[in-house]
Amino acid sequence: MKNTICVIGAGSWGTALSISLSKKGHEVRLWMRDEAQLEQIRLSRENLRYLPGVILPENIRLYGDLKEAVQGSEVLLLTVASQAVRQVIHSIRDVIKADQIIVNAAKGLENDSHLTISQVVKEELPENSFAVLSGPSHAEEVCRDMPTTLVVGANKRNIAEFIQDIFITPKLRIYTNPDVIGIELGGALKNVIALGAGICDGLGFGDNAKAALMTRGIREIARLGAVMGADISTFSGLTGIGDLIVTCTSMHSRNRRCGIQIGQGKKAHEAIASIGMVVEGVVTTKVAYELSQQFQVEMPITTEIYKILYQESDAREAVINLMLRSRTHELEEVVGNQQIEW
Amino acid sequence: MKNTICVIGAGSWGTALSISLSKKGHEVRLWMRDEAQLEQIRLSRENLRYLPGVILPENIRLYGDLKEAVQGSEVLLLTVASQAVRQVIHSIRDVIKADQIIVNAAKGLENDSHLTISQVVKEELPENSFAVLSGPSHAEEVCRDMPTTLVVGANKRNIAEFIQDIFITPKLRIYTNPDVIGIELGGALKNVIALGAGICDGLGFGDNAKAALMTRGIREIARLGAVMGADISTFSGLTGIGDLIVTCTSMHSRNRRCGIQIGQGKKAHEAIASIGMVVEGVVTTKVAYELSQQFQVEMPITTEIYKILYQESDAREAVINLMLRSRTHELEEVVGNQQIEW
Repeated sequence: MKNTICVIGAGSWGTALSISLSKKGHEVRLWMRDEAQLEQIRLSRENLRYLPGVILPENIRLYGDLKEAVQGSEVLLLTVASQAVRQVIHSIRDVIKADQIIVNAAKGLENDSHLTISQVVKEELPENSFAVLSGPSHAEEVCRDMPTTLVVGANKRNIAEFIQDIFITPKLRIYTNPDVIGIELGGALKNVIALGAGICDGLGFGDNAKAALMTRGIREIARLGAVMGADISTFSGLTGIGDLIVTCTSMHSRNRRCGIQIGQGKKAHEAIASIGMVVEGVVTTKVAYELSQQFQVEMPITTEIYKILYQESDAREAVINLMLRSRTHELEEVVGNQQIEW
Repeated sequence: MKNTICVIGAGSWGTALSISLSKKGHEVRLWMRDEAQLEQIRLSRENLRYLPGVILPENIRLYGDLKEAVQGSEVLLLTVASQAVRQVIHSIRDVIKADQIIVNAAKGLENDSHLTISQVVKEELPENSFAVLSGPSHAEEVCRDMPTTLVVGANKRNIAEFIQDIFITPKLRIYTNPDVIGIELGGALKNVIALGAGICDGLGFGDNAKAALMTRGIREIARLGAVMGADISTFSGLTGIGDLIVTCTSMHSRNRRCGIQIGQGKKAHEAIASIGMVVEGVVTTKVAYELSQQFQVEMPITTEIYKILYQESDAREAVINLMLRSRTHELEEVVGNQQIEW
C-alpha cells in the first residue's frame, strides 16, 4: 500500500514521521512555513534546527506552498503547534476535499476555546474524517528506527485501521483505540505534569517524589477526563501514563527541561524563553487549570503548577505543599464513581 | 504517639524504615540474623553492606535474638526476603501475641505456594492483624529524608490508620487503601517488569520502548490481579505504576541492574550472581508465570522474561518479539470486563 501524505509542519515530530513514512514507500510531502528552513533542508537534506544529524530520504518532497502540498494528498498530518491549527486549516479550507483524512499528531489544547484538536477540526471541517496519533514517542528515537509504540484514535474503526496500516512498520507498533478525547487529553495534559516533574528534578528531589508526582498527576488528569467524556482506562494506557513516563524521564522533553530550570530558581518566563521552541505545556497548564475550574474537578498538581507559571508562586513551597499537605487519613482514591468499601 | 516497633531484617529497606521511625521518636528494635553484620553496625552505627553512608540514630536498638526483640513490641515490621517470611514466623510463633500487628514491607511472593505475604501470615498467624506497606520508595532516598509517598493496605480501616499514624512524617506521606492483594501483587510483580526494563536498557533500546514495556507491563499485571480479586485501579496508583516507574528508572533497583546485564549479553545466572543481594524479581518471574498459567491470563511480557531467565531464550529476540508481533489490528485493550464500542 502506497499513499500520499501531506505532513503539515517540519518540527522534530513532523520530520521524524515524514522519515518513517517515506522509508515505508509512501509519497510524503513535507510542508513548512519558514522559507529559510525550507532552503536549508533542501540543500542539506537535514532538519538542522529540529532534528539535527538525521538525513531525510530523497523521496520526501519539500513544500513551501501549503495548498499545493494538500491537493491530491489522501491524508493531511497535522504536526503544528496546537494554537496554529485553526489558522492553518483556514488557509487551506478552500482546497480541502471531504474525502481527505485529517490526522493530528501534535499534543495540546486550543488556548481560548479550551477545545481539543479533534473538536477544532470538527468545527472547521465537519465533513472530514479525523484521527489522532499519540503515544510515548520521542521524535529523536522514531527517526532512528528505535522500537516505538503509538496509538491511533478515531471514532470510526475503518479510519483508525486505515491510518494504522499507513504508519505501522516493524519498528513502529500501532495500536487503535476509539477514545479520541481520552487520547487527546492524555497527550496534552501530560505536558503539565512533565513541567512539574522537571521542577521536582530541578529542586533536587529524588526518584520517589517524581514517581509520586507522575502517578498522582495522571490520576487527576483521568478525573478531569472522566468528567469530559473520556474512558478512564485510556489514561493508564500508552497515550496516558506511557506518554507521561517517556516525557518525564527524558531530556528530549522541552517541557521537562523548562521545569528543571524553574526548579533551579529561574523565573518562569526566563525558563520558557531559554528553551527556544514552543513549550506546549505552558499554555496547556492554563487551559487545564481553567478546565478544572469549569468542570469543578480537584486538580491539586495542575493548580500548583499554574500558580508557579502564572502567579509567581515559589516552586519549592508548591511542591512541598503538594507532597506534604496535612490530610493524614487520605484514602488513595480511585477515579470514576467507584465507592471504596472497608 | 510513641510505639515500640520490631523491625525484622536489616537490609536497606529495614534499615531505612528504622531510621525514619526512630527519628519520629518511636522505640525501634532492629533485628538481624547475621552476627558479623550486627557487630559491624553496633561498632560503626552504619549499615555498611546495605545502606552505606547513613548513620543510625542512637535510639535504634540492635538485636541478634529475634524472640527478645519481638516480645513487647506492638508492631512487627517484616522486611526480610519473601522466601524467608514463613521460616521467620515459625521461629517466633511461640512468643507472638494476638494483639501484635504484623506489617509486611518486603515485596515478593512465596515461591512454592504462590501465596502473597498476607496469605502466608494469615496461614501462620490467623489471629493477628495484618497490614502491607508499599509504594515508590527507594530506601536510599527515604533514609535521607527525601519526599516519598507510601500506601498502607489493610482490610481493617482502624489498622490501616494506626499504621499510617506510626509511619507518617513531614517527608513521608502515607495513603491508605483496603485492597491488600492489589497492593501486594503490584509490589511483587513490578519486579518482573523491572527486569524487562533493564533488559531493554541493556540492549540499547530507547525511552520509547521502555515506556511501552512499562505501560503494557502494568496492564498485564492488572489483568492477573483482577482475576485474583484485586481492584484494578490499585495498579494505576502509587503501589502499581508508581512503584514500577521508580523501579524502572533508577539505578537503585537490583532487578533493573540485573536486567541490564542480561540485555548486555550476560547469562541470566551470571547476572544474578553479580548483583550480590537477593534479586526478588527472578523468583517472582517464575511465580508470576505459573500464576498466569494457573489463572489462564495472557501475560506476554512475563512469559518472555520467564523464558529468558529459565529457558535461556535470547533477550534481543524476546524483546523484539514483544514489541513487534504481527497483530496489526490490535486494540489497546482495557482491563476488566469492559467492552469497547466503536
